[in-house]
Formats: sequence, C-alpha cells, structure tokens
Amino acid sequence: MTASTGSTPGADTSVAFSDPTYREAVIDLLAAVGYGEISAFERLAEDAKLAPTLEDKHALASFASQQLAKVEPICARLTSLGAESFVAMEGFREGFDAFHAHTAPSDWWEGLVKAYVGDGLANDFYREIAAFLDADTRDLVLTTLDDTGHTAFVVDRIKAGIAADPRLAGRLALWGRRLMGEALTQAQRVAADRDALSALLAGGVDMPGLDLAAIGRMFTRLTERHAERMAEIGLDH
Amino acid sequence: MTASTGSTPGADTSVAFSDPTYREAVIDLLAAVGYGEISAFERLAEDAKLAPTLEDKHALASFASQQLAKVEPICARLTSLGAESFVAMEGFREGFDAFHAHTAPSDWWEGLVKAYVGDGLANDFYREIAAFLDADTRDLVLTTLDDTGHTAFVVDRIKAGIAADPRLAGRLALWGRRLMGEALTQAQRVAADRDALSALLAGGVDMPGLDLAAIGRMFTRLTERHAERMAEIGLDH
Repeated sequence: MTASTGSTPGADTSVAFSDPTYREAVIDLLAAVGYGEISAFERLAEDAKLAPTLEDKHALASFASQQLAKVEPICARLTSLGAESFVAMEGFREGFDAFHAHTAPSDWWEGLVKAYVGDGLANDFYREIAAFLDADTRDLVLTTLDDTGHTAFVVDRIKAGIAADPRLAGRLALWGRRLMGEALTQAQRVAADRDALSALLAGGVDMPGLDLAAIGRMFTRLTERHAERMAEIGLDH
Repeated sequence: MTASTGSTPGADTSVAFSDPTYREAVIDLLAAVGYGEISAFERLAEDAKLAPTLEDKHALASFASQQLAKVEPICARLTSLGAESFVAMEGFREGFDAFHAHTAPSDWWEGLVKAYVGDGLANDFYREIAAFLDADTRDLVLTTLDDTGHTAFVVDRIKAGIAADPRLAGRLALWGRRLMGEALTQAQRVAADRDALSALLAGGVDMPGLDLAAIGRMFTRLTERHAERMAEIGLDH
C-alpha cells in the first residue's frame, strides 16, 4: 500500500526505472529543465542591464537568482539516477541557446514579455508532462513551477508601460507571436533528436501514453494558454 | 547595561544616530555596499559567460546569486534609517560602473582574478571600517563578508590554470596590479565626493577617528593584504 502512494522515495519509482527507456527519458527531461533554468538565469541577468531603474534591475536580478536556485535539486536527482548532471545538461545547450539567440530582446519591454511568455510556456509544458512521470520525478518537476512574484511584477510593469505608451501594445503583441513560433520550432527540433523523450510521451511500462492526436491536442492547449496569457497583459491582437 | 552590549536593536545605535553626519555616513556606506553587491552580481553573471564548462558557469552564476542575496537586508536597513534605498545606491553607480568599465576581463582567467581581488579588497575594507560603526550597522556589514566557498573555487581554478599553462602567471600578476590601482583610484574619487563618509573615518560623536597618518596606515594594510592574496595564488611577481 505504501508503494502505491508514490511518496516513499525509491519505492514505486524503482518499478518505473526498471525500464531503461524511461530512465533515459527522465534524465533527458531533468537535464532539459536544468539547462533551461541556467539559461533563464543568463537571459534574466542580461535583461537586467536594460532595466530603466536600479530597483527594476534588482528585481530582475533576483528573478534570475530564483531560477538558478532550482538547478541544485535537479543536479542532485540526475546524480542519483547515475547521470553526470552537467554532461546531461550540455545536450540541451544548443536548443536553448538557439532559442535565445533568435529572440534577443531589443529593449526592456521585449525582455519583460519574453520572460513572461517563456516562463508561462515552460510551466504549462511541465504541468502537461508531469502526468507521465513517476511520483518523485513529478514532485521535483512541479517544485520548479513555484512562482515567487515574478509574473505579478512583469504583468504590472507591462501594463504600466502600455498605459504610458499605447503604441507599445502592437509591437509587443507581434513579439509575443514570434517568441511562441520560435519556442515551438526549437522544441520540435529537440524532441526529434531525443527518442527516449518522445517515447515517454507515447507511453511506456505502467505509463499512459499519447497517440499523435493526443499530442496534437496538447500543443493546441499550450498555444491556447499562451494566447490567454497574452490577453491578460492586453496583447491579444 | 543592555544598551552597552550593542545587541539591542535601536538601543545604543540611537545615540550614534543622533549625530546627523553619522547617520548620513552610515547611509552612504550601506548604499555603497548595496550597490557594490548589485554590481558584483552583474560582473559575475557576465563573467559566467566566459566559463569553459557548464559546471564552471553554474558555479559563477551561483556566486552572483549569493552576492545579490546580500542586497535585501541592506535595503531594509537603509529604509529603517529613513533613506530611499535605491536612490541612495544610485549615488555610487558611477564609481562602481567606472571601475568595471575600466577593468572588463578579456577572458575567463582575468574574470576569476578580478572576482578574487575585488571580493578580497571589499572584505578587507569592510573589516577596517567596521571599527568605526555602531554595533547594529557593524553586524550587518560583517554579515556581507560570509564567504560561501567562492574564494576556494577561484583559488583552485587559478592554480590549476597556471599549472597547465605557466605563462598565465605573468599576465595575471600584471592584471592584479592594474585592478588594485583602478580600485584605489575609484575609491579615492568616491571618498572625495562624500564628506560624511570621510568624516566617519575622521571620527564623530562617541566614535574614534583616524588622523591622516592613520588613514595612510590603513591603505598600507589594504595594499599589503592584496599582495598576500596575490601570493596565495602564485601571482607575487
């Protein structure tokens, strides 16, 4: 009975991990999340330079630090799964770096919208994929979702910016669409290179899977949630 | 009796703070420390880009976060002293930014030596100035000295780098001298603009002061400690 609750470390997870493809998929997933956080730190630290005030700079630098703090537990888990954590993360450097290279913000506002869109999309994807994970891995992935005031800050600043200069809205709406397109492009490239991650979505030992239609519906949900988030900040053009 | 222990918040400090020049000096000092930490975050986040491995990048990013975490208590203290914390810090932006603009590292090694020299010098200066502060302010300044493994990491990496390429030592020894020269130049400029800070060193209500000879000896100590630190990493050329 205790094993079925999923809260005992190493209990029910050992069943799932007896499937080497599942283990490989979880290592890939955690490595992607971990590199994503390091990459988010770099992006936010860079965007902090564009801040109009020292207080805004400090706020963005603090968000960067919060993202980075999530890397340590991911590393510990990768190590306990027998992976070299930073070597595993290296495999995702190209995809994330390409995304950031293609979406370098040209000003403070684009940086804010990028942080908002990127975090929202990552959170949605982690919630979607959590359903396919063993309890321990799921808990770890879900702890990376903690929003510590970042979104509220960004929403507040963007709304104030648009109120002060309504022409901002059109430009930032287009920017949001471009970010989403680039994120989907890079995600598809990463998934195409990662058989185990793709297999995870398709199902495995004791794991429910998704057929192609279900994967399609998942992407539709992610796109809809993105549109909702843009609407929340008045960028639903 | 309790007041004389200096551990009761707002007790003995209120005596010191009845001197407006002392209050102004402490606000200046804390603002300088606070902006210095934000600036250290920016510098370390920037240097993290030069890291040869993802693990080194993560290490430097973590040190950046640790510096930033020190800003929050400084802000709280500035606010409790009636200052606008970020406005007060702005006053030190020019000096710190000029220092960093004149000492931008050209590679990973110069970045490491700069972090090592800069942190060491800041720590020595805070220890020196602590003697002139009320107990609460002194405790706050001394908590910013906590070294959380940063120095050991830097020393380890620099020694390994020189072992692998002995020619590095000459170049980095010169770089260390240039950093010290630039730090002293900017510190003198900042002090010249800040009458209250200078007055703090010269003594005030219930505070011991330094005459010119004593200030000279303090700078001699700071320079000697710098030379010792350079020797510790094999850069005493």
